[in-house]
Amino acid sequence: MTDTLSHIDATMDDRLARLFDFIRIPSVSTDPAFAPDVARAAEWLAQTLRDMEADASVRETVGHPMVVGHLDGPADAPHVLFYGHYDVQPADPLELWNTEPFEPQLVPVEGDTHIVGRGASDDKGALMTFVEACRALIETNGSLPIRVSFLFEGEEESGSRSLPGFLEKAADELACDVVLVCDTDMWDRETPAVTTMLRGLVGQQMTIQSGDRDLHSGMFGNAAANALTVMSEVLASLRDAKGGVAIEGFYDGVQELAEETAAEWAALPFDEAGFLENVGLKVPAGEEGLPVLHQVWARPSCEIHGVWGGYTEPGFKTVIPCEAHAKLSFRLVAGQDPEKIRTAFQEHVRAKLPADCSVTFSDHGLSPAWAMDRENPYLAPTLAALSDEWGRSTTCGTGGSIPIIGALRDKLGVDALLVGFGRFDNRIHSPNEKYDLSSFRGGMRSWVRIIEKLGA
Amino acid sequence: MTDTLSHIDATMDDRLARLFDFIRIPSVSTDPAFAPDVARAAEWLAQTLRDMEADASVRETVGHPMVVGHLDGPADAPHVLFYGHYDVQPADPLELWNTEPFEPQLVPVEGDTHIVGRGASDDKGALMTFVEACRALIETNGSLPIRVSFLFEGEEESGSRSLPGFLEKAADELACDVVLVCDTDMWDRETPAVTTMLRGLVGQQMTIQSGDRDLHSGMFGNAAANALTVMSEVLASLRDAKGGVAIEGFYDGVQELAEETAAEWAALPFDEAGFLENVGLKVPAGEEGLPVLHQVWARPSCEIHGVWGGYTEPGFKTVIPCEAHAKLSFRLVAGQDPEKIRTAFQEHVRAKLPADCSVTFSDHGLSPAWAMDRENPYLAPTLAALSDEWGRSTTCGTGGSIPIIGALRDKLGVDALLVGFGRFDNRIHSPNEKYDLSSFRGGMRSWVRIIEKLGA
Repeated sequence: MTDTLSHIDATMDDRLARLFDFIRIPSVSTDPAFAPDVARAAEWLAQTLRDMEADASVRETVGHPMVVGHLDGPADAPHVLFYGHYDVQPADPLELWNTEPFEPQLVPVEGDTHIVGRGASDDKGALMTFVEACRALIETNGSLPIRVSFLFEGEEESGSRSLPGFLEKAADELACDVVLVCDTDMWDRETPAVTTMLRGLVGQQMTIQSGDRDLHSGMFGNAAANALTVMSEVLASLRDAKGGVAIEGFYDGVQELAEETAAEWAALPFDEAGFLENVGLKVPAGEEGLPVLHQVWARPSCEIHGVWGGYTEPGFKTVIPCEAHAKLSFRLVAGQDPEKIRTAFQEHVRAKLPADCSVTFSDHGLSPAWAMDRENPYLAPTLAALSDEWGRSTTCGTGGSIPIIGALRDKLGVDALLVGFGRFDNRIHSPNEKYDLSSFRGGMRSWVRIIEKLGA
Repeated sequence: MTDTLSHIDATMDDRLARLFDFIRIPSVSTDPAFAPDVARAAEWLAQTLRDMEADASVRETVGHPMVVGHLDGPADAPHVLFYGHYDVQPADPLELWNTEPFEPQLVPVEGDTHIVGRGASDDKGALMTFVEACRALIETNGSLPIRVSFLFEGEEESGSRSLPGFLEKAADELACDVVLVCDTDMWDRETPAVTTMLRGLVGQQMTIQSGDRDLHSGMFGNAAANALTVMSEVLASLRDAKGGVAIEGFYDGVQELAEETAAEWAALPFDEAGFLENVGLKVPAGEEGLPVLHQVWARPSCEIHGVWGGYTEPGFKTVIPCEAHAKLSFRLVAGQDPEKIRTAFQEHVRAKLPADCSVTFSDHGLSPAWAMDRENPYLAPTLAALSDEWGRSTTCGTGGSIPIIGALRDKLGVDALLVGFGRFDNRIHSPNEKYDLSSFRGGMRSWVRIIEKLGA
């Protein structure tokens, strides 16, 4: 193993070059204009696995394709399925990037180096820590000590619509003992973590219509319903005065955080003020009186992602718009039923509308929250391997959603182990996304240790 | 006069052809991309006046140019200044037009014909009723019975920024006994009106900033301020539960409508339900208990014209945006000070912001309301001339703003007489703007009668 770890350190340039090639492909899954690039990223990934002698191929779906690959190992060793996604979020707003989003750069910073680019962290950099760990093990040992399968999807950032069907169809081929996922953060710069709780998601888009045409505010102002006024009132009504979600029944089934877990989290060295200061904020915006960690890990939320309507070009137009649009989502915790939340939200909106206005909804994701079984036999060796590399390790929660985790448990009957090397300040989904070079190096070295320990 | 009226009817095709040429120039003043077209429209108009032997020229300003022209008449006859604007509103949303906005069309409808195109009504069609009336009088009589000056601006739809300065500089040249303005509507299809009240306008654009970057809703949702949530709450807070404007001091100085005027308006045959039904609505949205006519003519209002922020492209992005934008305006009535309203609005917004959010404002117009002196000596002959043409006439209010009216009174020391032939359903500022052929014909014929009566 020492050989493999040294080998990784000695060949960093090649490993970075491959990651850069991958980032250069603008595989934005949500925008149809990028579909050819998404397909190109899938092909690049399949070829990268084939270069390691994996049995790998691109599998078409009704949406963006899957990449599946297999690397043999000892028949009695555990069989792991590594899941990642090769699609990325849109890069906009482009004007806020300091570098080209799809032309990755190394930027030295105090104590580390940033790999900057869209997908550098989420999920191309993270995904490549595992792929490169396998490659390094094969380069030094000729083969892997466990059986490894790969599953990479291209729709994680746009709802993973094809995944459940594909998992069902390919369940036999993807049968395994545990799924490994590398799409999460470390607890802090020094402490790698296994994430044991994820929030679910209900994503919604809505269009409010008032009347059948745009109107002149001088002629109709005051008297005619304004779709943007109605939208503002609807959106404002989603939160109560104490920062909670004001939809009836929204918190039904939500459990108080177990005392033991609350105590564990309270013991974590978390700088609540610094968490917000780091992004230019200082006033916690959510439920009053709840620690920030509870809010982002263990409480459901409602966030508005986009609003548009009326005249938005330079200059001014005194129009009363007849249409207004919004995209928003709810993060869910265990105990909440996504379909019930969606229904309650839509009923809440309809109840707020004046009688002559109407609303239409469309879905952008619907997934329940997830919590890992703490008795899973792969958890302890993984935590031990992480401690070997970093000197420490922990479990934690996360506020994000990885909808696939629920699908994996449902379709393959196995649980997932979430190990990630991302940092809090990676700006994923934002301009100037980055991945620390120490995350990339430490991630590859950690996976080597985990694979060795699972194969021991 | 009968000769001139018959002459107009006999030469409608030529008069329409000139109007169509004018509409074909996309003189959108608010969008810098159309600046060359705005300049072209000014030159077209000056040439049109010169074709009538007027002393006319284009005058440069720091913004879009003015067109000024003069036609002689008897030295002892009244001197009128006709004001109009040759710029138009943007045509968007383009997809809602049934025809090309800048390719005017004649569309037959039951009982009339529509001239369809951006500016067909506001203000190109209206402006040309007066220009063509002068042309027809000269064609039949060789000269006009009064002295006429023309002032056409190219910034009416974007704040008339250059106008006050220009009026001041050109006050001697533009000295006159009364200003005529043709930018208003008839009371109904059969009844022409002189408009004696106009609302003022405070136009504002604002950007709310929360934090210094967009954030991932999974990592920061609940805990971090969301600029769109804050914007929604700010916008929703501008109206109270009874449809009034909830800004402190907003109604200070607003007078109750005089009983006499209220009675006059109550006597007008106005179908309140039909007014809204015509645009697909049925619930009056403004102040509870107030008749719609009072709301749009005699009460101040607040309308949102545009909102945008976050991810608005196809698909979905779970971002917490750090910026949100809105354009909105207040219509004012007599007694309200535009600068005080602007200050009160900005203070209201600032008071609603969380301590770690900020807001910036920019102006889009600032003008007081206006009410005409009922004793003006030109009012009675104008109403009489209108009755001669249409069989009836009336005075009325309007909810719109024509900021120039106040500037004319301030800079030239004369009042304005607002006569218009627009119809309620002309869709000005909206897709499929139209001007009725009967408005165009009746407008030209009305101006001939008014000019003759003022010269008698």
